[in-house]
Amino acid sequence: MPRFRLLIEYDGSAYVGWQRQDNGPSIQGAIEKAILGLTGETVSIRGAGRTDSGVHARGQVANVDLQRGWKGETLRNALNAHLGQNGEQVSILDAAEVSPEFDARFSALRRHYLYRIICRRAPLALEARRAWWVVKPLDHEAMHEAAQMLVGKHDFTTFRSAHCQANSPVRTIDRLDVTRDGEIIEIRATAQSFLHNQIRSFAGTLKLAGEGKWTPEDVRTALEAKDRKACGPVAPPDGLYFMQVDY
Amino acid sequence: MPRFRLLIEYDGSAYVGWQRQDNGPSIQGAIEKAILGLTGETVSIRGAGRTDSGVHARGQVANVDLQRGWKGETLRNALNAHLGQNGEQVSILDAAEVSPEFDARFSALRRHYLYRIICRRAPLALEARRAWWVVKPLDHEAMHEAAQMLVGKHDFTTFRSAHCQANSPVRTIDRLDVTRDGEIIEIRATAQSFLHNQIRSFAGTLKLAGEGKWTPEDVRTALEAKDRKACGPVAPPDGLYFMQVDY
Repeated sequence: MPRFRLLIEYDGSAYVGWQRQDNGPSIQGAIEKAILGLTGETVSIRGAGRTDSGVHARGQVANVDLQRGWKGETLRNALNAHLGQNGEQVSILDAAEVSPEFDARFSALRRHYLYRIICRRAPLALEARRAWWVVKPLDHEAMHEAAQMLVGKHDFTTFRSAHCQANSPVRTIDRLDVTRDGEIIEIRATAQSFLHNQIRSFAGTLKLAGEGKWTPEDVRTALEAKDRKACGPVAPPDGLYFMQVDY
Repeated sequence: MPRFRLLIEYDGSAYVGWQRQDNGPSIQGAIEKAILGLTGETVSIRGAGRTDSGVHARGQVANVDLQRGWKGETLRNALNAHLGQNGEQVSILDAAEVSPEFDARFSALRRHYLYRIICRRAPLALEARRAWWVVKPLDHEAMHEAAQMLVGKHDFTTFRSAHCQANSPVRTIDRLDVTRDGEIIEIRATAQSFLHNQIRSFAGTLKLAGEGKWTPEDVRTALEAKDRKACGPVAPPDGLYFMQVDY
């Protein structure tokens, strides 16, 4: 059976998350339903990252095996037609046949995420559910400095969810940059893989640094504590975007 | 009675438009309801521009007279609290007391609009209802060149809605620039005032130029026809943003 790679964009706010679950509509389920509608096949697709409810994607990747060959463009357009008919907030940006060895999850070399904060007094209207609204002014340079404590290979027990299923809490963060453009603060994170809630845990902790409540040294101490209770409050999912996977 | 100027952001997709109407919720109505909730006063606010259903704003301006003085910040925060409670997609960015001569509509020196097109094969998920999705590739330089035919003082009968209530079809367009950033094409329009549907009529016509169907000369001929039937198809409201008013 030929294997296909799908590149996927979605607005996560209407879904329980990437993964199929009993408690509501998932992005995985939406795409599997579109495939069933198109080909009559009941498939299980595999994503590069299991994003939580409310988390968005501009470049999620998944693989799926289908019974017959498809031209990538035809598959993309037909799946989008089904997704549109079903009223989904999911779009297939690209589809292509790949080697049967390709695995969206395990073949990934690097994953890139963006976390967006909008820092202003007025609530968000146009950006509601698309960014974390923070009222207090944040010093993005202090956030960037604190972020550098988290770059490199560490035991990230402090910064992962109690529900994280990874065997090891050790990860290598290649990049954690904080930049500002007017009222928008962007945190860009790159690693081969992340732990559950790791970037939202980073974002919540870096906000404390931006408010002047935590120094970079406090962030290092929290990291070295290897204790979930040492983490700052976890940031909401609204600001998180799964941007790209490198293979 | 003191007069206040409100600076307003909204997601227009859930509303029948700026103006209060019998057929559904309006942005004007949402703000007037928030004012009633806050002060107990039934007021009629006056906006700088009557945006249509689906049109967004990052900088709509309105004026309102209230019975007592308010600190701008207090008024803004209190109105936002009421708008939030009512589940509105409207945010008051700023509120300030102004001279009783200030009139959001007639004191305006220049209005700035943005029209966003996203040009790609895949439907919009994250940008659904926030841009015009165009599948065919567009040449933004051809669009910009054609746009220059519309700059200056002209009779814009061709480019206004049959329902336009303005006495004169003559307007002076100060700026109509088309730029591209990746798959996003932006049309920026500035004038003291615009006719009803003028920018959406421009956008629909410039798309024809971007597809190579119309030359700049065709745009000039359509303008000179002074005939609504000579206009290209009107672009959807989703891509239009009322950005700023200069006083």
